[in-house]
Amino acid sequence: MPAPRRIRLGVSMIGMGYHLAAWRHPESSAGGNMELQHAVRVTQAAERGLLDMAFLADGVGIRFNDVPKGALSHTCKNVQFEPLTLLSALAMVTNHVGLVATASTTYNEPYHIARKFASLDHISGGRAGWNVVTSATDMEAQNFGLVGAPPKTGRYDRAAEFVEVVKGLWNSWEDDAFVRDKAQGINYDPDKLHILDHEGAHFRVMGPLNVARTPQGRPIIVQAGASDQGRELAAATADVIYAASQTLEDARAYYDDVKRRMAAYGREPDQLKIMPGIMAVPGATRQEAQDKYEVLQQRVEPIVGLAALANYLGDLSAYDLDGPLPEPDPADRRDHSRGQIFLDIARRGNLSIRQLYLSIAGGNGHRLVIGTPSDIVDAMQDWFEGGGADGFNLLPTWLPGGLEDVVETVIPEMQRRGLYRTAYEGKTLRENLGLAWPEHPATAAKRAAIADAVGHAAE
Amino acid sequence: MPAPRRIRLGVSMIGMGYHLAAWRHPESSAGGNMELQHAVRVTQAAERGLLDMAFLADGVGIRFNDVPKGALSHTCKNVQFEPLTLLSALAMVTNHVGLVATASTTYNEPYHIARKFASLDHISGGRAGWNVVTSATDMEAQNFGLVGAPPKTGRYDRAAEFVEVVKGLWNSWEDDAFVRDKAQGINYDPDKLHILDHEGAHFRVMGPLNVARTPQGRPIIVQAGASDQGRELAAATADVIYAASQTLEDARAYYDDVKRRMAAYGREPDQLKIMPGIMAVPGATRQEAQDKYEVLQQRVEPIVGLAALANYLGDLSAYDLDGPLPEPDPADRRDHSRGQIFLDIARRGNLSIRQLYLSIAGGNGHRLVIGTPSDIVDAMQDWFEGGGADGFNLLPTWLPGGLEDVVETVIPEMQRRGLYRTAYEGKTLRENLGLAWPEHPATAAKRAAIADAVGHAAE
Repeated sequence: MPAPRRIRLGVSMIGMGYHLAAWRHPESSAGGNMELQHAVRVTQAAERGLLDMAFLADGVGIRFNDVPKGALSHTCKNVQFEPLTLLSALAMVTNHVGLVATASTTYNEPYHIARKFASLDHISGGRAGWNVVTSATDMEAQNFGLVGAPPKTGRYDRAAEFVEVVKGLWNSWEDDAFVRDKAQGINYDPDKLHILDHEGAHFRVMGPLNVARTPQGRPIIVQAGASDQGRELAAATADVIYAASQTLEDARAYYDDVKRRMAAYGREPDQLKIMPGIMAVPGATRQEAQDKYEVLQQRVEPIVGLAALANYLGDLSAYDLDGPLPEPDPADRRDHSRGQIFLDIARRGNLSIRQLYLSIAGGNGHRLVIGTPSDIVDAMQDWFEGGGADGFNLLPTWLPGGLEDVVETVIPEMQRRGLYRTAYEGKTLRENLGLAWPEHPATAAKRAAIADAVGHAAE
Repeated sequence: MPAPRRIRLGVSMIGMGYHLAAWRHPESSAGGNMELQHAVRVTQAAERGLLDMAFLADGVGIRFNDVPKGALSHTCKNVQFEPLTLLSALAMVTNHVGLVATASTTYNEPYHIARKFASLDHISGGRAGWNVVTSATDMEAQNFGLVGAPPKTGRYDRAAEFVEVVKGLWNSWEDDAFVRDKAQGINYDPDKLHILDHEGAHFRVMGPLNVARTPQGRPIIVQAGASDQGRELAAATADVIYAASQTLEDARAYYDDVKRRMAAYGREPDQLKIMPGIMAVPGATRQEAQDKYEVLQQRVEPIVGLAALANYLGDLSAYDLDGPLPEPDPADRRDHSRGQIFLDIARRGNLSIRQLYLSIAGGNGHRLVIGTPSDIVDAMQDWFEGGGADGFNLLPTWLPGGLEDVVETVIPEMQRRGLYRTAYEGKTLRENLGLAWPEHPATAAKRAAIADAVGHAAE
């Protein structure tokens, strides 16, 4: 009997939380985005909740040219730990939860990325994941010698080759390459060392990697592709997708589309877990939940709300906050898919500018569910059983409280319904996610040759 | 009364130890180069010994085109943790010892390096150090799109600008930039955010860094420059130098030269600590120490010894091992300074090829001292008081045993003589090394303006 299909959960642990006013929450540690103990507490809460993984979003720059001018200093989106160093530290104070870091394929070299994630996988005993991003902003480009971000097509071409090279480097050594025979002085079997010698349009990388094959075979690959190119890259290479949808209909359309694309790459649909973001705000009653949320909503200053819209819809500060959203200039919608979600929200609710920014202040276009634990599990179950999700990426309003609320009240309700694990199933993130072991190509070839020989002998 | 001048100690914790046969030591864990607990044990031993810092050498590649062919599989110089991820993990199981990682200026971007070391400095509470290297080997170049390493002059030009950019990024925020006033919604003071906007021959980097100024003001900068260019870069920018000398005469010449060069950069000589490498092998008697060393010497296979020479003197495998060293082809002496040390050793002792590789099998050209704890402290004191060293970088024969021997027997003797601390003086690596706080330029300017105003008022 196969194990019952269960909801996967991750958590976004960036900064002080996902809500625009998270850092202003009365109970928050306002400097938590640079406090190690804050990150320790968040990750340990995730592990107490038996979450699959804790995830660090990241960008390689700060929007210091903020729109409207001065907005940045009203947020805590300025400083944070670098993800790979932080997750390596957090690996030492946790035992089960997966550790997923974002790294850009546009401003990195495959050798470094392959190495750092392989190293994290060894340090954590098989809990590393890489969230592959292509870095769309100009402010990031300007930290790496460019004036603006390269065009999207070029970024995605590079990303596809980048991931291929990294995967190749992760197979530099077979799993059992190291014999370490002290008496004979033989450290490894030279036949089990593989030189990549990659030459492509974007990269020339010889290899081999100077890190052994990792406890998971290779780290988990995560993506958040929403555009056509993003979906295609995810279908080809991702183990997990962080998605963003507002309705089950949209979520299902996305889910079906990406899973259908996988066939072209010879992949089974269940080898990719699609996890839409969800901001879940639980309370003992619906009113209590709503009141909790209002604590943060009341702390969203107009300049901060306008800045959140400006990234996708341009600068709206010249318009009446309580008037309608003007028709956006297409040139301003750099991240088209998120901008489109914002527009849909505004039109669906006929929202003013103020109402729009308040409605995305929490989830930034992701789904928002405020209610009792039962309400929240209903909402998750609906999408999970309705073909819209394999699990969810929790976006806590603020940290650690917003996550601790979910762990203490929502997880038990999921467990009561048999929708969620009661203990970690495996030792690695891969095992917990129910993803197949990635056999080394050379091992697979040897196994096939032996099977072939046995087959011939039996003839 | 100023604090007495004390010997600084670091330790090279690479792989299984510094001796060519370290991994074959009967008591070693042969797979320790990829075992987290091995690294934990080594770092904790360093901290028990009150060492200033533990240091991870690094290269971004493996010499798989080994000379003589097949040598590599007889060594453990193949896989290891990536330094920044490993040291971030080790920060969680130590409290005082400095954590120094190697990173290349030739195959990295300043923004990433500034960020990762700043992050490690925050994670460790002010214990991060960056060993700046320019990566001389072709096998590294081939992992980054090149056929061979760029010429040395170009690498050092780039390195100088790279360090300048990194230091600039580390000053993106003043120490007290973050006011984090939750009630007013003011997270930071915009006047204390500084945009680097660097444009130079090698780099264009806007900044600001998305990590706060660090507990040490900035991480410690380490170098190992032996050549003229390396010495100049170190004199301009380094806080610590790992040097290599065989005799006090050579050590003193190097020490005097580098400290003299500092004046041109407006730096005081005591703001740079010069720490020659030393392989110290203590025993209760001299014979016991020698016997300990022989355990490893007997395990040096000729192919491994020849490979160690080949890096600097070319392939000698066609010659009689027990015959004299042939005159080297200058083209083979890529790392001229180390090759020269090897030649000096051979000539001084009139050594055969076998004798030469055995004589460098331990320290690889660094100083080797085998004897009682008292002998070893004599040797250190001689150089420390004789103007050749501010301290030493310990190169343990094997790990953790070779280090634990020193911690348990040599350190107490140093303490008895008043040459070494009996407790950590400060909380940060900078404080323990006795290095000055690097005041933020804007803070310094404000202080100067205030002093000036006070001066005028008093007139």
